[in-house]
Amino acid sequence: MTAIDAVIMAAGKGTRMKSRLPKVLHRLAGRPLLQHVLDTAARLQLRHCVVVTGNGAEAVEAAVQAWPRDTGSATPAFVRQEPQLGTGHAVQQALPQLPGEGTTLILNGDVPLVDADTLARLAQRCQGERLVLLTVTLPNPAGYGRIVRQGDHVRAIVEHKDASEGERAIREVYTGFMAVPNAKLRDWLARIDNRNAQGEYYLTDIVKLAVADGAEVVALEAPEPMQVEGVNSPVQLAALERAYQLREAGRLLEAGVRLADPARIDVRGTLECGQDVEIDANCIFEGCVTLGDGVRIGANCVIANAAIAAGAVIHPFTHIDGEKAGVRVGEGALVGPFARLRPGAQLGPEVHIGNFVEVKNSSLARGAKANHLAYLGDATVGERVNYGAGSITANYDGANKHRTVIEDEVHVGSNCVLVAPVTLGRGATVGGGSTITRDTPAGALAVARGKQVVIPDWKRPEKKKG
Amino acid sequence: MTAIDAVIMAAGKGTRMKSRLPKVLHRLAGRPLLQHVLDTAARLQLRHCVVVTGNGAEAVEAAVQAWPRDTGSATPAFVRQEPQLGTGHAVQQALPQLPGEGTTLILNGDVPLVDADTLARLAQRCQGERLVLLTVTLPNPAGYGRIVRQGDHVRAIVEHKDASEGERAIREVYTGFMAVPNAKLRDWLARIDNRNAQGEYYLTDIVKLAVADGAEVVALEAPEPMQVEGVNSPVQLAALERAYQLREAGRLLEAGVRLADPARIDVRGTLECGQDVEIDANCIFEGCVTLGDGVRIGANCVIANAAIAAGAVIHPFTHIDGEKAGVRVGEGALVGPFARLRPGAQLGPEVHIGNFVEVKNSSLARGAKANHLAYLGDATVGERVNYGAGSITANYDGANKHRTVIEDEVHVGSNCVLVAPVTLGRGATVGGGSTITRDTPAGALAVARGKQVVIPDWKRPEKKKG
Amino acid sequence: MTAIDAVIMAAGKGTRMKSRLPKVLHRLAGRPLLQHVLDTAARLQLRHCVVVTGNGAEAVEAAVQAWPRDTGSATPAFVRQEPQLGTGHAVQQALPQLPGEGTTLILNGDVPLVDADTLARLAQRCQGERLVLLTVTLPNPAGYGRIVRQGDHVRAIVEHKDASEGERAIREVYTGFMAVPNAKLRDWLARIDNRNAQGEYYLTDIVKLAVADGAEVVALEAPEPMQVEGVNSPVQLAALERAYQLREAGRLLEAGVRLADPARIDVRGTLECGQDVEIDANCIFEGCVTLGDGVRIGANCVIANAAIAAGAVIHPFTHIDGEKAGVRVGEGALVGPFARLRPGAQLGPEVHIGNFVEVKNSSLARGAKANHLAYLGDATVGERVNYGAGSITANYDGANKHRTVIEDEVHVGSNCVLVAPVTLGRGATVGGGSTITRDTPAGALAVARGKQVVIPDWKRPEKKKG
Repeated sequence: MTAIDAVIMAAGKGTRMKSRLPKVLHRLAGRPLLQHVLDTAARLQLRHCVVVTGNGAEAVEAAVQAWPRDTGSATPAFVRQEPQLGTGHAVQQALPQLPGEGTTLILNGDVPLVDADTLARLAQRCQGERLVLLTVTLPNPAGYGRIVRQGDHVRAIVEHKDASEGERAIREVYTGFMAVPNAKLRDWLARIDNRNAQGEYYLTDIVKLAVADGAEVVALEAPEPMQVEGVNSPVQLAALERAYQLREAGRLLEAGVRLADPARIDVRGTLECGQDVEIDANCIFEGCVTLGDGVRIGANCVIANAAIAAGAVIHPFTHIDGEKAGVRVGEGALVGPFARLRPGAQLGPEVHIGNFVEVKNSSLARGAKANHLAYLGDATVGERVNYGAGSITANYDGANKHRTVIEDEVHVGSNCVLVAPVTLGRGATVGGGSTITRDTPAGALAVARGKQVVIPDWKRPEKKKG
Repeated sequence: MTAIDAVIMAAGKGTRMKSRLPKVLHRLAGRPLLQHVLDTAARLQLRHCVVVTGNGAEAVEAAVQAWPRDTGSATPAFVRQEPQLGTGHAVQQALPQLPGEGTTLILNGDVPLVDADTLARLAQRCQGERLVLLTVTLPNPAGYGRIVRQGDHVRAIVEHKDASEGERAIREVYTGFMAVPNAKLRDWLARIDNRNAQGEYYLTDIVKLAVADGAEVVALEAPEPMQVEGVNSPVQLAALERAYQLREAGRLLEAGVRLADPARIDVRGTLECGQDVEIDANCIFEGCVTLGDGVRIGANCVIANAAIAAGAVIHPFTHIDGEKAGVRVGEGALVGPFARLRPGAQLGPEVHIGNFVEVKNSSLARGAKANHLAYLGDATVGERVNYGAGSITANYDGANKHRTVIEDEVHVGSNCVLVAPVTLGRGATVGGGSTITRDTPAGALAVARGKQVVIPDWKRPEKKKG
Repeated sequence: MTAIDAVIMAAGKGTRMKSRLPKVLHRLAGRPLLQHVLDTAARLQLRHCVVVTGNGAEAVEAAVQAWPRDTGSATPAFVRQEPQLGTGHAVQQALPQLPGEGTTLILNGDVPLVDADTLARLAQRCQGERLVLLTVTLPNPAGYGRIVRQGDHVRAIVEHKDASEGERAIREVYTGFMAVPNAKLRDWLARIDNRNAQGEYYLTDIVKLAVADGAEVVALEAPEPMQVEGVNSPVQLAALERAYQLREAGRLLEAGVRLADPARIDVRGTLECGQDVEIDANCIFEGCVTLGDGVRIGANCVIANAAIAAGAVIHPFTHIDGEKAGVRVGEGALVGPFARLRPGAQLGPEVHIGNFVEVKNSSLARGAKANHLAYLGDATVGERVNYGAGSITANYDGANKHRTVIEDEVHVGSNCVLVAPVTLGRGATVGGGSTITRDTPAGALAVARGKQVVIPDWKRPEKKKG
């Protein structure tokens, strides 16, 4: 196998996107189009990876540099194509980065769903010798360049407008992907011209040069049209997003995950599921999410960057976002409905987090409960703690954040305020409605409230007359 | 161009709707069917607009009178058709309202999605002289009246049951819309009869009179079938609603709005979007909503009557309803998840409203924050105020509402109650757990809480034996 | 009519489900597949009902015994098929339970949506005499056993692999359902063998014996393919779920219910609706739910085991789950958005429950309101009570639950804690921020809060330097 290089076209303007964002930075399934292409290409362990930028070059290059990258594949290098004089011209800019031997894959930054297997087969057919065109057979090929074959060999790509009646009947078309022997690429590119209506240098013109040279030109069919679909407009982006999500839903079902509605789940990132996982309608998963055996996710949940252990139940309308710090939900824990877990929420086994409860940067040990209308921020909560309805850790003094420590088996009453830094010792009790500002010893009762005063025959305010 | 009058049929019973509500008052995309028709017709600046009512006449007439109306088009007048003796009889009731010259459009109160352009073309072809029939070509025309043409001219509308084999092969059918010269309408209507199985006067009978008179009868094809689809049952209403919503989603995408799922957005009213707006799955927009450049709307939001400025982010599960007072969200503000903005919520730039927070009839100036479990009602909140978790403006004394003023840079602790009317001066601090009943000077600390008492070795209640 | 027995095949492994749960216990529309079959079969008032278990037999038998059962039909009996040697072998195990006369229906525990009418017709055609095969005509019958007919009579079921070219063109196939005369069943089953590639005893082999015996064998076509679709994988389960839900949505629409989106409603149980009910997009109904005339359900609600009376409005994002105790919402009540009603919530007429409010095991009488961020548990709330924002019934002392009684026209301020057991007498007022531990007489004002202290020129904490 010869070494593989890639040239990724990412200079286009994308006018039809009607956006300030360069087209290749638009997101599909949560990742920019170009990132899909780079991630897929990287799985081939590229020798060189050249991204051709142009429109919005600074933004594109900055974005690429910020994305995480697997080692083992070349770091993307950038060449600028300015002005943009066609696809052939784009690849010409990349030539100085490409060695004289090996295989170069021509990829498109706005065609996100090509599979690594497809690219590998493309490179393998090329082997630094053949020109290989990736093709697809369409029910309606109008507008696309037809592949004129002679047996296994390609004789020409004929543009729709130049095609004869017979050629227009051909349904196999060129996709924009090819694999080219480096040794030939430089030669062919030097010989293409821009004598055409648009005055552009077309990469596809190398096909006729290759045929004329007697080089071997072959076609490889894409296994599914979705892999070669490009994004030129928000309509196309939305359609490809839905096709992608349906395919992902199909994969989850095949793996044994039960989905209430395969048309109403969105996975934007990776979702790993154990056995007997159930996901109700209208859920969204983002970033990296893992669900253990038997986990059940209720309807309308949004879950990002979280690890949910076996047997946990996430009730409807739960919002979990671990961002960088992550969220961990322990075995058999119950969360929601209407709960929000924020970065650094670490729930132990059998923890219960109920409705209208927010947890941030806090750990709760086995069996702790915060079931109603509460806030836990920057808190360390022990086992079997009962954290009362309406209670709040006042972790922020307006300038700095402080920690609240609630030891095992503490019982905090309703509507309490725990003013951090503060520690409630093991087994302590806090009376409802108390604002706790000083540490409370283990086993003690702390109360801080006004004495109840009763004024009989109270005359309530009356409605003012308008 | 001759003057245009409209007769709108709105007397039908709509038995198949199985509803107490008259059929034409059922809603599509948030507006009653008849209101769609009236609004569209009004764009032609009608000279006279006659609504023929019958079933549920009082309810229909009261509803029409309550709807907002553009000036520049005639105020709808009503005529009652009682009993209902057919479409021809319905138009006969309207005759006294129609001048002797000009063009009358016959519209249907249960066919909501006809376009103003289509109606304008209908009127223009008529010019007070020709009888113009709006037609549509259907894949399966069974049951509909076929349009028998001779070149551009219509020779007859043939009912399905009366049609010959050859006529049944015609796929162009009559839609129920027509434009008639006023000068002829009176004459033709006087000559139709009810000698048919149903004993009704059919408006379409004027076609044969017109042809017999040698008047010019022409057909105009509707640009899309959706425009002429009527609603006779909840099944049809739901299908038309979905078709409408998909079309609206398509329009948003064409305008550059990014939609996570075009099949899961509902727009019931007007949604104006700036550039680079993103809308996640399963959102609903009602009334008049504007979204500035770069606004992002998270999944599962319900937003009505609100103006959201550039760069604001609305997180998932946010409910905004401005009703008549409106809601305004400032530039770069962050709202949600699980936030609710109610009428009169006015958020300045960079304001943060977090989870389980309700804001009503309150303004928050630049950079103010209420991030957790809070209620702000009838409050004026200054810049950079930090409004603590669980804090509440007690704006209602059981009889009257009062205002809370929180000046710039005030810090309100957790679980406070601000008993209105009350003012917290600039830079004041309120200790957590305080109930504030009196004004607090600028720069002061106000605390109102019980002293913390600790009782050691507290014996907690024990579980009673069943 | 002869007596009807049923043999239900529920021994299969369901490997493709990739689940620890036996296949027949997977849920469709909230009920296990086998429960659908048992419930449907029970409507025929069976004499005997024999469930053949095998894989996961204990789990299946325990589940069946736990399901509610109508009287009037036989209690299911179980026979174990171990090892599993084919469908014929399965029915052989059931023979000892079946009398010598009558009709036996062969049903499949993984084909959940067969209709009782279809089964009744199957039994009726049999009448203890004919062998009746339930068939279905498929667009693509590949892989299924073809029905070879001679007029009304079936000559054979030919397996796909054994079928001639002509037989493969037959689109009528066998479904796995049959009705067999008990008198013949025993005889035929004794004569089948396992001399085939799989070494199994096939029930369908009785067809050739019947034909050879000169017995009458007839086919009955299923009215819709959905009725005979089996579940072998999560993909099939999800597809059948969607087909089921679309059919249910169609039924609701036919009954006059207005659905914003028939593709976005899930009914898992029974949903009874009065006239003029409106249900917005993305709602889920579970268990037994009734909605009175004119009820409106907002978008994204999850409602289980609840009775909602006429004219009530449930705003978006409301979660109601009555479980066993049930939830009742009175006439004209307003609930939500973001409300949660839990078991035993009993709302009287015109009650208002607002955002971020949880109600459990509590009754609220006519006109009572809890509009913001509140918890009501184990409370009895009188008429026209105003329960303030952020207020909480502290019903749980860490060991036992106690009751709070709030009599008519009480006004509870904001952020109060009512420590149960406690009673607020008629017309009492509780000042905002109070923790109430003792009963308050009728008409009195109870306050329990610290005195407000003001410290001028307070120096707030400053941000620590990192």
